[in-house]
Amino acid sequence: MKRSFIREILESIDENTISFAGGLPDEALFPLKDLQEASTKIFQNSKVLQYSLSNGITSLRQKIANEYTKEGFETTADNILITTGSQQAMYIIAKYFESKSITIEEPSYLGVMNIFRLNALFMDSVKLQEDGIELESFEKSFKKTKLAYLIPDFQNPFSSTYCDEKREEVAKIVQKYDGILIEDAPYRELYFDKKHSTISSLLPHQSFHLGSFSKTLAPSLRIGWIRASQELIQSILVIKESIDLHSCGISQYILDEYLNDEKKYKKHLDNLRKNYHTKMEFFAQTLKEELPQFHFSKPKGGMFIYGSLEGIDDTYALVQKCIKKSVVYVPGSEFYIDSKRNNQIRFNYSHSSFEKIKEGIKRITYSL
Amino acid sequence: MKRSFIREILESIDENTISFAGGLPDEALFPLKDLQEASTKIFQNSKVLQYSLSNGITSLRQKIANEYTKEGFETTADNILITTGSQQAMYIIAKYFESKSITIEEPSYLGVMNIFRLNALFMDSVKLQEDGIELESFEKSFKKTKLAYLIPDFQNPFSSTYCDEKREEVAKIVQKYDGILIEDAPYRELYFDKKHSTISSLLPHQSFHLGSFSKTLAPSLRIGWIRASQELIQSILVIKESIDLHSCGISQYILDEYLNDEKKYKKHLDNLRKNYHTKMEFFAQTLKEELPQFHFSKPKGGMFIYGSLEGIDDTYALVQKCIKKSVVYVPGSEFYIDSKRNNQIRFNYSHSSFEKIKEGIKRITYSL
Repeated sequence: MKRSFIREILESIDENTISFAGGLPDEALFPLKDLQEASTKIFQNSKVLQYSLSNGITSLRQKIANEYTKEGFETTADNILITTGSQQAMYIIAKYFESKSITIEEPSYLGVMNIFRLNALFMDSVKLQEDGIELESFEKSFKKTKLAYLIPDFQNPFSSTYCDEKREEVAKIVQKYDGILIEDAPYRELYFDKKHSTISSLLPHQSFHLGSFSKTLAPSLRIGWIRASQELIQSILVIKESIDLHSCGISQYILDEYLNDEKKYKKHLDNLRKNYHTKMEFFAQTLKEELPQFHFSKPKGGMFIYGSLEGIDDTYALVQKCIKKSVVYVPGSEFYIDSKRNNQIRFNYSHSSFEKIKEGIKRITYSL
Repeated sequence: MKRSFIREILESIDENTISFAGGLPDEALFPLKDLQEASTKIFQNSKVLQYSLSNGITSLRQKIANEYTKEGFETTADNILITTGSQQAMYIIAKYFESKSITIEEPSYLGVMNIFRLNALFMDSVKLQEDGIELESFEKSFKKTKLAYLIPDFQNPFSSTYCDEKREEVAKIVQKYDGILIEDAPYRELYFDKKHSTISSLLPHQSFHLGSFSKTLAPSLRIGWIRASQELIQSILVIKESIDLHSCGISQYILDEYLNDEKKYKKHLDNLRKNYHTKMEFFAQTLKEELPQFHFSKPKGGMFIYGSLEGIDDTYALVQKCIKKSVVYVPGSEFYIDSKRNNQIRFNYSHSSFEKIKEGIKRITYSL
């Protein structure tokens, strides 16, 4: 089992390296003061330091449930399981489906592919298109696996978003074969124009919908969640409990306190969306100017620009040269089951400053 | 796979229930103000909200390493992996040894037995005595398994502590068969008279030594650690990373800030030891007065009194009656591989107030 390219990179690079690698939020946009206030408040009650429930503190689960219900997807606190980030959510689900087969997108998120490998899931990949998964192949695969892992909103790494028709078609296929959909949506709130409705809402008893506060608030809180039927939540609870008893209580209480002011959070999200949109446009423009041989479509949200570099066969070999010039990205090979070298690149545009974006892309051109 | 008795109990009981069940610290002894101060401080740097290293933040690992080195057990930050509580430490190690055989104590900690079941480890149990594991049977078992899970300090649930001779003998056996020892020590700092040296220090390259801040500071931080050779740490890092990328950053930074004042922490620990010692004596005295048919030896530290109830065959059946009278404990059956009903009980004495200890034990006598 190999470690994640991104996690290894994080350990080996120094402060001078410009990183387009990880899905890191912009630190300048963290609501540091507001979270500090929330934190100071919660330490007035010693309960916040004690053991708590495995599924998560009730009021936080209730708040997350309310957001689904507002969208028309009826949800109660009992449908929510708080996890130590989305990463753990996926680990728990993968452990639950240990040794089964699963349909995934191609390319797909490398962190989850590692989880699937670790839990002996057999991955069958189906090509992703600009408007979502290729439906005919998806049905052919799902008919056999009856289990799918999809990232419909601003996919990682491909940056594509499923159109409404494909969302409905996917739901129909999952129903037709009486299977289960795992819908991973950590970037869902980071839309530029519109928020799509979940596929899971069409499959309330046959889906896991995953969300996270890592991309919208702060990764270090390590708070994500799973939305599923009560039966499914109960089935996976024993795994959650075995893994860490419960997720960090301090984080949960800080988050719950912070979310009490709904308007503040909405304002923060609006600000985030605007800023990331501007950054994406800047990154795209800089690519066009400095690296015109890189071909890509602009994403509608999220944190990544994905594309291919004309005239280069192996972006994995290239990144080794880039590291020496103190700039990194994730080569496309990392997002394929067979890890075969190719000419693709995933760029993260959310983390670096405008200055560093410009400088970083220039450094890549020097490495060619 | 069944859920943990304690976690289920925690969900079903209400505020009026007196719980001698979980290994819960006394909330009145949490250093709430000091942790609040540390928390307010750390939120001055936005780095604390970003993703961080999978093995844990460096300065916290360094502090933990220093404590081992002070004891004469040479340790660097690279020997430490920060985990989401000791529970996760055990999950990671169990996953690493998936489907292997393992020698455990009888009785043993139910939370870890569940982890072993979930990861298909075959458990071979060896009887625990007042001064540690029965050595002849241990060697016989270890010769086959070459892997052992032991809790030498104030064992959970049995409350026994290994004498120095048995510690040395265990180390010799592990060396003789070139095996691995997993030494779980969450209660180690909660001694009444003296701190024993670790078995792991005699086996620096063949051991995992596990520690936790859950019992000494606050469970909700969800911060524990594994001390092992760099080679072993590197081998399990890929599992840690898959499970949750890294443990809660907020908790790690708060803890690291709090531990900067070494004297404050030492004073807190001294206070904890004194208080728990007094509570244990009170619990023991109350048992003698109110429930003289309960036979036990007083522990030398930790959080539990373990013993057997004369005239009762099945303490699992009894606890169902106790729940109706709003008092709970963990029946001995939960700590055996076969879960066979017996007359044993584990009482936690750290959590409840003196008043509730008295009232709770009385309620148990009414349930007989």
